[in-house]
Amino acid sequence: MGVEANSAGIGVTELFQMLRDGVPRTRAELAKSTGMARSTIAMRVDELMRLGLVAPVAGAASTGGRPPSQFALNPGARVVIAADIGASHATVAVSDLGGTILAERIAPLDITLGPVPVLTWTLETALALLAESGRTAADVAAIGVGVPGPVEFSSGRPINPPIMPGWDRFDIPAWVGQHLPAPVLVDNDVNIMALGERSAAWPSTEHLMFVKVATGIGAGVISGGQLLRGAEGVAGDIGHVRVARGSDVQCACGNRGCLEALASGPAIARALRAQGVEAADGNDVVDLIKRGNIDAIQAVRQAGRDIGEVLTACVSLMNPSVIAIGGSMARVGEHLIAGVREVVYTRSTPLATEHLSIVQSWAAEDAGVRGASMLAIEHALSPAALHMLVAG
Amino acid sequence: MGVEANSAGIGVTELFQMLRDGVPRTRAELAKSTGMARSTIAMRVDELMRLGLVAPVAGAASTGGRPPSQFALNPGARVVIAADIGASHATVAVSDLGGTILAERIAPLDITLGPVPVLTWTLETALALLAESGRTAADVAAIGVGVPGPVEFSSGRPINPPIMPGWDRFDIPAWVGQHLPAPVLVDNDVNIMALGERSAAWPSTEHLMFVKVATGIGAGVISGGQLLRGAEGVAGDIGHVRVARGSDVQCACGNRGCLEALASGPAIARALRAQGVEAADGNDVVDLIKRGNIDAIQAVRQAGRDIGEVLTACVSLMNPSVIAIGGSMARVGEHLIAGVREVVYTRSTPLATEHLSIVQSWAAEDAGVRGASMLAIEHALSPAALHMLVAG
Repeated sequence: MGVEANSAGIGVTELFQMLRDGVPRTRAELAKSTGMARSTIAMRVDELMRLGLVAPVAGAASTGGRPPSQFALNPGARVVIAADIGASHATVAVSDLGGTILAERIAPLDITLGPVPVLTWTLETALALLAESGRTAADVAAIGVGVPGPVEFSSGRPINPPIMPGWDRFDIPAWVGQHLPAPVLVDNDVNIMALGERSAAWPSTEHLMFVKVATGIGAGVISGGQLLRGAEGVAGDIGHVRVARGSDVQCACGNRGCLEALASGPAIARALRAQGVEAADGNDVVDLIKRGNIDAIQAVRQAGRDIGEVLTACVSLMNPSVIAIGGSMARVGEHLIAGVREVVYTRSTPLATEHLSIVQSWAAEDAGVRGASMLAIEHALSPAALHMLVAG
Repeated sequence: MGVEANSAGIGVTELFQMLRDGVPRTRAELAKSTGMARSTIAMRVDELMRLGLVAPVAGAASTGGRPPSQFALNPGARVVIAADIGASHATVAVSDLGGTILAERIAPLDITLGPVPVLTWTLETALALLAESGRTAADVAAIGVGVPGPVEFSSGRPINPPIMPGWDRFDIPAWVGQHLPAPVLVDNDVNIMALGERSAAWPSTEHLMFVKVATGIGAGVISGGQLLRGAEGVAGDIGHVRVARGSDVQCACGNRGCLEALASGPAIARALRAQGVEAADGNDVVDLIKRGNIDAIQAVRQAGRDIGEVLTACVSLMNPSVIAIGGSMARVGEHLIAGVREVVYTRSTPLATEHLSIVQSWAAEDAGVRGASMLAIEHALSPAALHMLVAG
């Protein structure tokens, strides 16, 4: 009785959650880990194979006799669409269920054109990439979209996004779903970058902060393996925390001394101009650094210290094991990170920094689109999605 | 085929997860929410009743005829033990599975006595309280313990706890389990206070910060409904974040300007003594405030501002909807909160504070023991625990 009841409790979804990591397993291994009868396992595996989600894997130890029967996620069963929509550029990709990018396109795209033109381009690009990959709209299991502003994740609507005129409360999932019928997940761009960075470089890390330093400054926070979004979807918005040395610097937000007003690309360029160094924007700062300009190096180092001051509080609050610094200003290399490390390692408690790595983003420009695909895959392989598939 | 497979996927554990909120539901309602056949629901409900976890509930609308068949969690099926062990006091309680305290005892207990004397007292008290409640050790589904230091939650061991000599890496679950065979969950005291505060006052809040202001200052953070523990179990350790005005104040940690060195009970007392006001410790500060001493009111208000300065960064990073201020210094009432609000509402972004409540802890002294019981109940009612019960 006991075993029978337990077997009924573990169904096809639970078995799939075990197999979705891509690691091949035999029926015997699956029976052992679940405590289910071999016969039940066989039935459930057959069901997953009929759905195409699981496929047999040829064992490496095969010696020419009867092949060992191992099973794993079939990454090509379906595909996902990933879109990383920034302020001035967008990246769209088609990826398989294992996260491998099958086709990708990057193009300049002005977010201020408003939702319909921007999403129309995104959708047309996605359909073109699907065709290039030899897939159709029917193969799309989910769509992940990142946008440069706060998002109500449950509804996929941007909420009061400061740099996205016309997008406030626009129902992105409904609009996209009209043209490409698949679940649509929408999140803030820095949140998806955190997902992308983890997937690319730190897959076993449960506690990671991704800090984007560019025209603005923001963070995506993964804690306990979960992306933190906060009550209004604005978790990670560290650009307007006050920095001690900046009390006389006015920020565009109306307050004084905000981190963004001191350490973003435009802020560093402004500080250099005040010293008589020509630098129109963050790109010029990166160029100056690459040519070894000492004023630029010092200004970036100080920006790193300012970011470090705010991250010290974040380290105490979150106790992450990795802080990855990305965004266009991360291209200056070690100078920015050196400033961050200098302050965080000096100011945070030894317990919180003993195993803390502060590093440059590894995924770099790909962090966003990788993260958008992870968001879509996570949904496509979730128990809820599988329930629908099995019932449908 | 589709429906049958789906039914197999939803078993006894899934059904119980639906019923554990205590809301009575009929078989028809359960069938509707799960999409399972009425006959399957009937079997699963019978199974949960045989285990004693679910019981029939008499419907309020009963009119004397055949009683409506509603079912809900049976809170008295088993009990949990909750222990909130502080630096100088401990509270032990027996609670039912609904979180109602059946018996409770508070006593002075010095944590520096070391793990065996402290846990022996805790265990003996728990057994006495069990007897008082008419229950036995066999009724105990789980044990929740809070201790005043960092804990590796997965193993239940304190890690380098600064004020708990002799406890470093002590295996609390193994020791307790030898004497009372039930799963033992151990966590930091401020973390369990956050759980207790949410359960007592904000049950539907997914994003809550509990800030304890006493001899030390620390926070417990719930985000997305989950307690954040961090990579080394020290998440929420905000007492050593630097406050701008404190650069010349030495902290016991070796750094300067830490929040704890400026705004804890002893720090406020020290500041008052420097002004010629007699105050040996935080309790004296509370007494002075209650007598309307203006210097004490100003000192506490400033401590509130200092705490607010650090919380501003926390609000930007986490975007909570509630910050509850507890600990012995919260007894001074509105003066501390007023200082916190003054700075947080001035400095944080409007999006992050639009719906943010900053309030005094409602659970107060009970927050810890309530939270320890929630920790134990959460485990006792988890799918994993039910699987064991069904299989056993």
